[in-house]
Amino acid sequence: MDTELLRQLATPNDTKILLCVVDGLGGLPDPETRKSELETAHTPNLDRLASDSVCGMTLPVGYGVTPGSGPGHIALFGYDPLKYEVGRGVLEALGIDFDLQGSDVAARGNFCTLDAAGNITDRRAGRIATEICIELCERMRKVKLAGVEVLVEPVREHRFVLVLRGEGLDDGLEQTDPEREGVPMLPVKAERPEARRTAELANEFVRQAGELISDHPQANGILLRGFAKYPNWPAMPEVTQMRAGAFAVYPMYRGLAKLVGMDVAPGGGTYESQLAAVRKAWDEFDFVFYHFKKADAAGEDGDFDAKVEALQEFDTLVPALRDLGADVMMVAGDHSTPAQLAAHSWHPVPFLLQSHLGTVDKVEAFTEEACRHGMLGIFPAKEALSLAMANAGRLMKFGA
Amino acid sequence: MDTELLRQLATPNDTKILLCVVDGLGGLPDPETRKSELETAHTPNLDRLASDSVCGMTLPVGYGVTPGSGPGHIALFGYDPLKYEVGRGVLEALGIDFDLQGSDVAARGNFCTLDAAGNITDRRAGRIATEICIELCERMRKVKLAGVEVLVEPVREHRFVLVLRGEGLDDGLEQTDPEREGVPMLPVKAERPEARRTAELANEFVRQAGELISDHPQANGILLRGFAKYPNWPAMPEVTQMRAGAFAVYPMYRGLAKLVGMDVAPGGGTYESQLAAVRKAWDEFDFVFYHFKKADAAGEDGDFDAKVEALQEFDTLVPALRDLGADVMMVAGDHSTPAQLAAHSWHPVPFLLQSHLGTVDKVEAFTEEACRHGMLGIFPAKEALSLAMANAGRLMKFGA
Repeated sequence: MDTELLRQLATPNDTKILLCVVDGLGGLPDPETRKSELETAHTPNLDRLASDSVCGMTLPVGYGVTPGSGPGHIALFGYDPLKYEVGRGVLEALGIDFDLQGSDVAARGNFCTLDAAGNITDRRAGRIATEICIELCERMRKVKLAGVEVLVEPVREHRFVLVLRGEGLDDGLEQTDPEREGVPMLPVKAERPEARRTAELANEFVRQAGELISDHPQANGILLRGFAKYPNWPAMPEVTQMRAGAFAVYPMYRGLAKLVGMDVAPGGGTYESQLAAVRKAWDEFDFVFYHFKKADAAGEDGDFDAKVEALQEFDTLVPALRDLGADVMMVAGDHSTPAQLAAHSWHPVPFLLQSHLGTVDKVEAFTEEACRHGMLGIFPAKEALSLAMANAGRLMKFGA
Repeated sequence: MDTELLRQLATPNDTKILLCVVDGLGGLPDPETRKSELETAHTPNLDRLASDSVCGMTLPVGYGVTPGSGPGHIALFGYDPLKYEVGRGVLEALGIDFDLQGSDVAARGNFCTLDAAGNITDRRAGRIATEICIELCERMRKVKLAGVEVLVEPVREHRFVLVLRGEGLDDGLEQTDPEREGVPMLPVKAERPEARRTAELANEFVRQAGELISDHPQANGILLRGFAKYPNWPAMPEVTQMRAGAFAVYPMYRGLAKLVGMDVAPGGGTYESQLAAVRKAWDEFDFVFYHFKKADAAGEDGDFDAKVEALQEFDTLVPALRDLGADVMMVAGDHSTPAQLAAHSWHPVPFLLQSHLGTVDKVEAFTEEACRHGMLGIFPAKEALSLAMANAGRLMKFGA
């Protein structure tokens, strides 16, 4: 349901909802064995949980849409990912735990290689080492712009974040990356009159930064894209009347949780230490988001066996996650990351929901094929929260 | 499809469509037997009909949304229940067969108990007996308001309907029920300037009514909510080019059918006598809505066995319903009412559609689990009418 209806129907009680996100959960059959990563993995705990749950497949954004981490998670937090878009600049800043402020404009930066004529010969500057990125970012911090603070943060390899901080900035800016080589970079253009000053400042940044790094043989230019401000969305705790807490090892996922107004526990550590943190804070929250990254990383590496292993590792965490005693527990993925594709994909993602109501379907394994036959069918990922809240008795009747 | 597209594609012919609504049809497995009410019931006629049909599950309003009777039926009549909302005051009036007129403003009333300080101590006045409700409503009919007629009708226990009748009334009014106890009732506030006069009249009603019942030990106050006018929706016969008739024992369902412009047969009697009325009027209609209430009532009572029995009773009506010879026959529910929850629920509802085209799927039982695997999958309830009309040859091709 949409955010406004959710706000209208939400009613508090003392139940607890646990959302476990296995990043990149879904996969595809190996062409040889015809078994997917989940079908290959030995996951007795997940299978037992599936037997005690209702199952289905989530469609993260839409048919054929391969989601980034942003929309994949935003949907599972109950927001329409097509309506609540996270700018690339903001996402890049979240990914390095950068504390974006309300009026900041953030952009994703790439170092690139320019030839003598100013044409781009490599849009990623030969993927320079992260240490070089750090050194060049330090140089670019010397840029001075009238009336705004300039913040430059390295990410890794050729990637960095640019943040302009000050009053009256507007993120209606076109990217400077022409997305092809052999042509010069584009100027920053304002998409609307209110953004003209910010466009001028960004162009001045590009000019000064270009001078500061011009002597580097590979990374002598920069490309900026995804200019964006931190969005001002309806906060999940306010919409749902649930105190929501996020537990994730990696900054990106804490950042996404913060975007929707969750309380965010300190990051880092291991999946076990994060789980211990959940256990400790259990009484403080009505809704807990627990993030497991490894399956996605292995999938993106195209490493089928590593993904199988990652899923098995998650399986060993399941008994302790169940022991938390949530009234409603979900295991979901933000998107599929089939090892076969070595990338995120558009495929629907296995999903299970275990409820204190005891409702179950006939699914007895947590795989793509088994969940496909579950009671929930294929449904939009943004509805998972509505289903969980309904099962938790946290939604009032609609209409009389 | 939406109402405008339906209007555009609808074309008349001489086919007949029968919609049988089994109120509260869907259920949940009993935790012991792991069988739902439908799986437990012996329903040979429904199962045979399912074998001769295509099956699926309707989603009444949306994922996680528990519908009231209003939206549940409105959807099966082909209207988007999120767009066509029935006000609570109107629904309460429909439920007692009150003949609402175009400019009336209706409100649902509750008697409540107020303490000496004017704080609410019981929002339902201890659920006073219906006879007391009738007597107190008679007292409140003495209220005189300038320029409008005051109509007060008892419903049952602590519930009544207030109708203000006159020119220039507006239903943009906030409820007086604070939805908690220990605080005073709220004044009626206008949500827009046009509603100010109506707000004043409603407040004056509350004041005078309060004086008239002030000596009652339990029911010495009233709470009003769901101020609403009779909506002016596109009429189903006009949109679909079908003469539509409604047959229901209980007033609420006749009222909902009237809201969408159906011809409504007299109520009361038994399911058999209503069926006889359908048979008699068969030539007069292209679309017939037949309502069976008992399954919902048993579900709301939390009585699994009674619901099983109600379903079996409906099953005995199926041969006669089939014998009517509709070109398209549907068996649907307005929502699920699992005995386990003793309430309406958000769960998708079994659905079957038998067509003169003879199209069938592999489903051979009319249960949640079986219909889940039917050809129609899980689909929005508001699309059932479109499917029926398509099967009846009553929809033209879209585009060339």
